[in-house]
Amino acid sequence: MSAKRRLRLGMVGGGAGAFIGAVHRMAARLDDAWELTAGAFQSDPEASRAFGLALGLPEERCYPSFQVMAQAEAGRADRIDAVAICAPNHVHAPAARAFLEAGTPVICDKPLAISREEAEALEELVRRTGLPFILTHNYSGYPMVREARHLVSSGALGAIRVVQAEYAQDWLSVPLEDNKQAQWRGDPARAGPGGALGDIATHAFHLCEFITGLETQEVSAELTTFVPGRRLDDNAQILLRYKDGARGSIWASQVAVGAANGLRIRIFGDRAALDWSQETPEELRVSSLGEAPRILRRGTGGLSQAAMRATRLPAGHPEGYLEGFAQIYSDAAELVRAHMELRPPDPLAALAPSISDGVRGVRFIHASVASSRESSQWTRV
Amino acid sequence: MSAKRRLRLGMVGGGAGAFIGAVHRMAARLDDAWELTAGAFQSDPEASRAFGLALGLPEERCYPSFQVMAQAEAGRADRIDAVAICAPNHVHAPAARAFLEAGTPVICDKPLAISREEAEALEELVRRTGLPFILTHNYSGYPMVREARHLVSSGALGAIRVVQAEYAQDWLSVPLEDNKQAQWRGDPARAGPGGALGDIATHAFHLCEFITGLETQEVSAELTTFVPGRRLDDNAQILLRYKDGARGSIWASQVAVGAANGLRIRIFGDRAALDWSQETPEELRVSSLGEAPRILRRGTGGLSQAAMRATRLPAGHPEGYLEGFAQIYSDAAELVRAHMELRPPDPLAALAPSISDGVRGVRFIHASVASSRESSQWTRV
Amino acid sequence: MSAKRRLRLGMVGGGAGAFIGAVHRMAARLDDAWELTAGAFQSDPEASRAFGLALGLPEERCYPSFQVMAQAEAGRADRIDAVAICAPNHVHAPAARAFLEAGTPVICDKPLAISREEAEALEELVRRTGLPFILTHNYSGYPMVREARHLVSSGALGAIRVVQAEYAQDWLSVPLEDNKQAQWRGDPARAGPGGALGDIATHAFHLCEFITGLETQEVSAELTTFVPGRRLDDNAQILLRYKDGARGSIWASQVAVGAANGLRIRIFGDRAALDWSQETPEELRVSSLGEAPRILRRGTGGLSQAAMRATRLPAGHPEGYLEGFAQIYSDAAELVRAHMELRPPDPLAALAPSISDGVRGVRFIHASVASSRESSQWTRV
Amino acid sequence: MSAKRRLRLGMVGGGAGAFIGAVHRMAARLDDAWELTAGAFQSDPEASRAFGLALGLPEERCYPSFQVMAQAEAGRADRIDAVAICAPNHVHAPAARAFLEAGTPVICDKPLAISREEAEALEELVRRTGLPFILTHNYSGYPMVREARHLVSSGALGAIRVVQAEYAQDWLSVPLEDNKQAQWRGDPARAGPGGALGDIATHAFHLCEFITGLETQEVSAELTTFVPGRRLDDNAQILLRYKDGARGSIWASQVAVGAANGLRIRIFGDRAALDWSQETPEELRVSSLGEAPRILRRGTGGLSQAAMRATRLPAGHPEGYLEGFAQIYSDAAELVRAHMELRPPDPLAALAPSISDGVRGVRFIHASVASSRESSQWTRV
Repeated sequence: MSAKRRLRLGMVGGGAGAFIGAVHRMAARLDDAWELTAGAFQSDPEASRAFGLALGLPEERCYPSFQVMAQAEAGRADRIDAVAICAPNHVHAPAARAFLEAGTPVICDKPLAISREEAEALEELVRRTGLPFILTHNYSGYPMVREARHLVSSGALGAIRVVQAEYAQDWLSVPLEDNKQAQWRGDPARAGPGGALGDIATHAFHLCEFITGLETQEVSAELTTFVPGRRLDDNAQILLRYKDGARGSIWASQVAVGAANGLRIRIFGDRAALDWSQETPEELRVSSLGEAPRILRRGTGGLSQAAMRATRLPAGHPEGYLEGFAQIYSDAAELVRAHMELRPPDPLAALAPSISDGVRGVRFIHASVASSRESSQWTRV
Repeated sequence: MSAKRRLRLGMVGGGAGAFIGAVHRMAARLDDAWELTAGAFQSDPEASRAFGLALGLPEERCYPSFQVMAQAEAGRADRIDAVAICAPNHVHAPAARAFLEAGTPVICDKPLAISREEAEALEELVRRTGLPFILTHNYSGYPMVREARHLVSSGALGAIRVVQAEYAQDWLSVPLEDNKQAQWRGDPARAGPGGALGDIATHAFHLCEFITGLETQEVSAELTTFVPGRRLDDNAQILLRYKDGARGSIWASQVAVGAANGLRIRIFGDRAALDWSQETPEELRVSSLGEAPRILRRGTGGLSQAAMRATRLPAGHPEGYLEGFAQIYSDAAELVRAHMELRPPDPLAALAPSISDGVRGVRFIHASVASSRESSQWTRV
Repeated sequence: MSAKRRLRLGMVGGGAGAFIGAVHRMAARLDDAWELTAGAFQSDPEASRAFGLALGLPEERCYPSFQVMAQAEAGRADRIDAVAICAPNHVHAPAARAFLEAGTPVICDKPLAISREEAEALEELVRRTGLPFILTHNYSGYPMVREARHLVSSGALGAIRVVQAEYAQDWLSVPLEDNKQAQWRGDPARAGPGGALGDIATHAFHLCEFITGLETQEVSAELTTFVPGRRLDDNAQILLRYKDGARGSIWASQVAVGAANGLRIRIFGDRAALDWSQETPEELRVSSLGEAPRILRRGTGGLSQAAMRATRLPAGHPEGYLEGFAQIYSDAAELVRAHMELRPPDPLAALAPSISDGVRGVRFIHASVASSRESSQWTRV
Repeated sequence: MSAKRRLRLGMVGGGAGAFIGAVHRMAARLDDAWELTAGAFQSDPEASRAFGLALGLPEERCYPSFQVMAQAEAGRADRIDAVAICAPNHVHAPAARAFLEAGTPVICDKPLAISREEAEALEELVRRTGLPFILTHNYSGYPMVREARHLVSSGALGAIRVVQAEYAQDWLSVPLEDNKQAQWRGDPARAGPGGALGDIATHAFHLCEFITGLETQEVSAELTTFVPGRRLDDNAQILLRYKDGARGSIWASQVAVGAANGLRIRIFGDRAALDWSQETPEELRVSSLGEAPRILRRGTGGLSQAAMRATRLPAGHPEGYLEGFAQIYSDAAELVRAHMELRPPDPLAALAPSISDGVRGVRFIHASVASSRESSQWTRV
């Protein structure tokens, strides 16, 4: 415990009616490392201002646009230490660019960008500026996901053979024209070329690589749109080939009636296997060949440093989505502080998803779309 | 309850060391409709005779081969009423042919045959002879699987959109040269062209069509062999396109460490969804759009006739694999009796898998193998 | 596998409408060790005869009463090798007495008797005759229950501290005057002094002693009748004190809405703990202090001889209630054969519940009733 | 969303090494309604000061004792709006008294006090001052617990018959002399007369009354100490009689190996039943007589206002312990604001546990201890 000042956080997007903006704010607050200081919350300047005032921000830091905010903040002595970008997808890259160019570290929602070109340009910009860039693939903040990664990298599973991931929701089972969340997600100009693919399959894709450390080489995809009138896929079936011969599969659906936020990942090695589900995130099932399966539980003895560091409460006191998301913010705080202090960050904070994860995610989206258009032909990521 | 005589059952295969033979015998016995009367249990005549004697059969009905048995039984006044074929895959078709030609109804393990040609010839023979032919896709005998089928056909799910099936085992995670069960399954000459594909994916394929009533049109398959030296696939990822636009997926693996007999099927319609797992077969989870999921339990009120007819015990008194298998035998008894009595069978007994299910399964195997060889190209079933 | 003849089984009770009679017959048949040969199935002689004929028994062995049957069978060369008594509770002791006095081994439902006096007299008779006597506390036939017992006796749990058992059903949540099963269970003259207490709490009581090997010394009971007009308890809360300082609790209810056959037992030692539920009988959860809980599964490696011996199918192929019940019959077959052959039985068959378990159960019922009448005063069992 | 200022929170206890202090701070922060402003964190003044500084408090508001803090804060224009008391049990009543007398609202950990006398005196003081007083029976903050309460009060369960509660932990399975948390809990002078009884059984007791609205009349208790040298109970078995004939049971244990924080409550009415477990708090199982059980999930449609109000995230995005605890703080904020603004509070905020819940909890502890000393005699609460 130390009396460090809280870092100052700006926010782009996340205004009225935006689910994820409130999540970012709660997550940033949870570990007391960040303080919301400025924002351009909505595309309408007046609405943005009103929203910021209601959050208790001073009027001068309720900005009409991210462009104005990036400039204005850069000129302040008490400028924001980082910006969180939680606007619709098409805003991610331009907003990130504006803040990076102004010298501000970025915490950005996924997918990183709509096109491969802007994703790669952004990666180049991050490299050039040397600024911290964190992508909120928040599910990688769960302690038992980090334990899973630790188990694979420590060799407990042996050589990985099969990765089975799925991410099932049902909120788009019917047309949702009047739902703000659904509107932009259904519009290729704002969401990019993937529907369920970009919105949720990318999370699963990231977790597969995060946990296994394997690089996906090729995908064979079948994207389907079930709800009439919808312009993007609402169901994605994707087979994966990994570098070393492992095989994978991702099923993502937003028309899976009965599913709320059913992200699950199973990893099978030649010596052991893992099973983790986001809706019961406190447990990680580990099965070693010829032995009784064990249920590892967050907060209990014997877990890795990576898992222990991402935990706040004793076992049996359920942590959940916010704590996992908050972990990304705590990692970000460490990465930003280390950058300020010209020191290397805690290596465990570097588990937070980075710009290169973002680029891989965008490539995955584009390869899957291309494969699906070509009769599920195997396509390089 | 009526004092009908038990039907006389002959058996081909199922001798010493064969897991499935003992299962057939227990299943046939459970509902007291069958009596084991004759057998050609092993390819070695002496071993076959010894095995039959140990089961308490009279010596004259312990046969040296299925050919001799088919002929000899056909000539007896107390001839067997049906034969159960539970030998390795390559024996299925020739044995079935021999008994059908001798006028004996057949209960046969899956897959029906090794080649499409012999499967189709057998179908023609069944059609010509008019004899009962039952394929032991035993999982369709579970009451809650029949309830699932009833729910779909009654329209409770609306239009089917997505079918997600999986069948995971781990017993072939390591080379098993000295295991009798593994030996013939690993030999294309005896198992046919599919490994996990033929052994277990076919069960999942059948359940998908059985429950949904949908016909699979095309498959895109990725078959993999992970254990060095193995000649057939031990992991199969298969995407499916159904006639009316529904999409499906089957993952079958015998190297899924930690999995015992993990057959699970989920069906998503536009109004409701189903979820059933073979290892907890007593429950069927039903989720209707916008409602709390319900857990239907075997033996409780409100289930369909099809489910009630396949149940023996009150709810909470777990039934399992043997009861499901026994249901196929009870259905078979009704089909055989109806045939003898020249009357139509109970329509619910006709839920038992038939020769045409067998032909479809063989086509599925061959289409999947072909697709996998051609870079997962979509291939007609 | 050996060509032993099947043992001949007689049956008392279990006629039309009796759930448990059909269970006894299926259980006896499953392992092919017994053949139903004679019976006095119902109290009405004509109905009894018709029922036996419908089962395929010869007319001369369809008896009008257990008294006639006990005498007549004793005089036959092909006399029954044992009798199964599955009539209402008040018949247990007189029928058992009749067969024991005729020299016939007995397989008897629980509770053993209605009064302590007749239970103790029966125990004396068994001792005197030396005949096999098996009580069908069938839940002790489950493989994972036997594994639990093995783990405790092998010291894996350390000293036992706490035993938590429960048995919840809901079928008596409303008055059931027209249900045959409910009628006699609600009549003290036929059921004895316990309602839920005698019907199901006794099973839980037996399992607690069976698994732990601990002897219950005192009980403190609160018996309640919730359904108006009912004459026996339908809810029982019982605290237990064991010989060595361990404490226990049994909750048995037949008005627990939503519960089907919810028998669960948890045992906590100072080193490890067990958790087993009858409705998911294939798994046994074992938690050792400071370690991740393990899920032991029937049919997998590393289990005890006692568990392996009581298993028929590979892991993942669910066994259930019938197999557990059948195990008692298989044990009984071994005990009867050993008695015939004047040799000691397989010690693992001797796990089957015995006359002394029956006496303890009756004492438990009476002590609980007495305690409840005296303001839950601690009462010696 | 409105730009209300955050309320100022003082804290008593919760210093270095205290698990629950950090929980209070995170919970207070989560919904952005409170700001930690002052504290007397530890009994050692120097340590208290250092701890407060490390939290970022100004030096003048890091107090050496709660007495000094109560006085000093009362004299400030920017005085705290409420104090949170999270010190060991024996401090609860004197600290609460000091702040109430100084005119400060109180948020207090349970149990309210060590003796019945001081609990009742405190209740009188709250009545006299009219100040808000909130007891952190935090488990009643879970949305699905509030849904459970709503279902009972709306009549969905019919008349309540049976309440089964349990709270199992294992962290005191071995002597823990060197653990700060364990030390004071094991000392009757600081913990009061109950061990597991006071620490956790009180939570279960509160939930039973909170959900059912029933008043407990009598208890019959068996308290046991298993770990040698321990001075208070580590296992409590308690039977309950409710006002209207319902029966209940609470089992609380801190030697239940394998249990982390296993609080579960089941309520059985004559029409329906509920089942909720703290370790999987997102779901509430509801079984109506004769219908398939339904799984109600937080965040889905059809839930009560009480449940919706206590929710932050969409279904499937797990909320947990902190959110439930935060709900008590949000309720407290509303109660404190309403008090300031001389208006009635939102009735749903009044679900937060109150001083009278505290008094009932203390009576429950004392009645249980008395009953256990008198051979589990039924004792008035």
